[in-house]
Amino acid sequence: MLIVQKYGGASVATTERIINIAKKVIENHNRGDQVVVVLSAKGDTTDDLINMAKEIDENVSKRELDMLISTGEQQSASFLAMAIQKFGVQSISLNSYQAGILTDSNHSNSRIESINTERILRELEKNQIVIITGFQGIDAENNITTLGRGGSDTTAVALAAALGAEVCEIYTDVDGVYTADPRLISGASKLESINYNNMLELSSQGAKVLHNRSVSLAQKYNVKLVIRSSFNNNEGTFVDNSSFEKQDISGVALNSSIAVIFVKGSLRFSRLISVLSFGKIAFDMVSFLNDGEQSNIGFVITKESLKEVMQILDEYKAEINATEIYAHEDVCKISIVGTGITSNRAIVSKLFQALRDISVIPICISCSEIALSLIVDNNQASFIANHIHERIFTE
Amino acid sequence: MLIVQKYGGASVATTERIINIAKKVIENHNRGDQVVVVLSAKGDTTDDLINMAKEIDENVSKRELDMLISTGEQQSASFLAMAIQKFGVQSISLNSYQAGILTDSNHSNSRIESINTERILRELEKNQIVIITGFQGIDAENNITTLGRGGSDTTAVALAAALGAEVCEIYTDVDGVYTADPRLISGASKLESINYNNMLELSSQGAKVLHNRSVSLAQKYNVKLVIRSSFNNNEGTFVDNSSFEKQDISGVALNSSIAVIFVKGSLRFSRLISVLSFGKIAFDMVSFLNDGEQSNIGFVITKESLKEVMQILDEYKAEINATEIYAHEDVCKISIVGTGITSNRAIVSKLFQALRDISVIPICISCSEIALSLIVDNNQASFIANHIHERIFTE
Repeated sequence: MLIVQKYGGASVATTERIINIAKKVIENHNRGDQVVVVLSAKGDTTDDLINMAKEIDENVSKRELDMLISTGEQQSASFLAMAIQKFGVQSISLNSYQAGILTDSNHSNSRIESINTERILRELEKNQIVIITGFQGIDAENNITTLGRGGSDTTAVALAAALGAEVCEIYTDVDGVYTADPRLISGASKLESINYNNMLELSSQGAKVLHNRSVSLAQKYNVKLVIRSSFNNNEGTFVDNSSFEKQDISGVALNSSIAVIFVKGSLRFSRLISVLSFGKIAFDMVSFLNDGEQSNIGFVITKESLKEVMQILDEYKAEINATEIYAHEDVCKISIVGTGITSNRAIVSKLFQALRDISVIPICISCSEIALSLIVDNNQASFIANHIHERIFTE
Repeated sequence: MLIVQKYGGASVATTERIINIAKKVIENHNRGDQVVVVLSAKGDTTDDLINMAKEIDENVSKRELDMLISTGEQQSASFLAMAIQKFGVQSISLNSYQAGILTDSNHSNSRIESINTERILRELEKNQIVIITGFQGIDAENNITTLGRGGSDTTAVALAAALGAEVCEIYTDVDGVYTADPRLISGASKLESINYNNMLELSSQGAKVLHNRSVSLAQKYNVKLVIRSSFNNNEGTFVDNSSFEKQDISGVALNSSIAVIFVKGSLRFSRLISVLSFGKIAFDMVSFLNDGEQSNIGFVITKESLKEVMQILDEYKAEINATEIYAHEDVCKISIVGTGITSNRAIVSKLFQALRDISVIPICISCSEIALSLIVDNNQASFIANHIHERIFTE
């Protein structure tokens, strides 16, 4: 069968690790599988290159930055091919141009448009293990593009879809998908499987194991994913449609890279939204209260964009009719993720029971078909999340 | 006018130097020239990458090594484009597949077969300064190849030929071509111009300023070269056909990366030559003496290949009928280069007068239409070369 494996930057950070990956890949090959491997750049290579570029100019063009940082994956891909060849097994590295990964021209955040698999299939037929540079593609003019965050996962899933792979294995530094981050929540346990929607929500809500973009793509093309560790042979977690109709709670995710902004006044609501859209600000968890003349709106943004958002709001303060604008920075979003969670009364009641136990009133609450999120003080977040996790998963 | 400029690895070794190069290039651009720049990899990048590959395997495949080391030029090309853009001037970096540099598939030592200049011309028309990765190309299957020693010079000359450039400027760490290496010969002086043949001979005989491969190419396509320093604005040396018919002595070159081998016996000469050819050994300065039954042959090889050549000769000793095989390792070749040198009695007599002055008898002497070479003991070479240089150039 044909499998696609993806290894992250930590897995190829040293010569020793590259040789270990080579052995892992060869095992699969010797079992009779056709193996396509997608690699990220070694360890800190990408960051180092970006820092060197910033020494030249703080605002380098994205086209040139893509040209620069794409070399990181090309290096690790050739290193792995060399390591596989060392054991007498045929292997070839292909960059995005050679592998036919075509994207739009949106440098630093491009989307894959199509994959011309001809060369990859030709090399597989020659019994080669094919190593492909993750995170990158070429546009219609042959310019190198990069896919942005989670780019190598996206490359792996896209290739698995295009090649009709049996499975797409995402190797990482954790054993699989957990009900919560084991470093933060003591009772966290590994999931055997999770459906696409819940995985998507977990990723969106801060679980760093897999970027939600690659999960969406996997769902769209029905690519079976396995998240597993590159450092051991544990089973990992399957991500697929197997439990699509079940009401299952998949986990608790924490995200402290956020801030909450409150705006008060007899607000021009639609004008506020268009001002934010104009600045291309991503926001969620909008809470809106209207008390006759006075409105009060709260919304969550990334901490990264806080400064910019506050500037925009200050600039348009009169125009949106705001009397007061303020931000909470030291906050954390706790999300309980599960298909049909808000219609699952047992879970909802357990959650609020948990909050009552420890006398916590969240700053905001919001829910979707698939997640229930709370904003709390960051310094209390771990304590609160542990308690919720215990109530929901261990009782 | 359209000019091609080539900068070596030392010229782009630091951010500061890259910014200096950017300024130099922009000066030309602002003068109204269309500028195409060819870059080598930064400082020690190529060696560092090769060393990392050797950590994985001593004998990595050349195809993968080319894939790996080609990233060095791609990085420096994007760095320079960024630095030019920093000053508000348009620039774009192109790697070998974007620039359309097509080669054969002889990895690590490929030859340029053609250049599809379409993309470069399109970018020049958009008023871009076009930065191109030196030293590399792609083969018919889109694999990345590298051109071997002096590769970036070759890229520059080939581009100048393909684009019909007015001039190809080779920027290096010296001011131009000297009558001898100024670090070795005290009286060495810079040449204003030199013709292709003499430049070729100087390069072949050990002058490191320009690889003879790029000189041949320039001669073939009549590309006017200028060798000049990237650290100052001095005039440099022109390499062209201007002084083709003149009997001019261009310089004295030293090369101590050689060894001499002597083989004695009633030799089967043609068998000896075919044995050496079989091993793809490059040799020159063959001296042959036949004294009835006994023959004595001496020839010069690179020091690098000495071990291999001695092994081959030992293996075929009986077959070539040799009784004695020995090598001189600590030798140096001194070459006096100039068109028509051997028919220039004044020069030849000055040379032998110089040798007589200091009582030196060379180990070997050989001459071609364009060079007269001596093999001497390496520890005497500098003394001898200085004396010859003084006799020929300053009297």
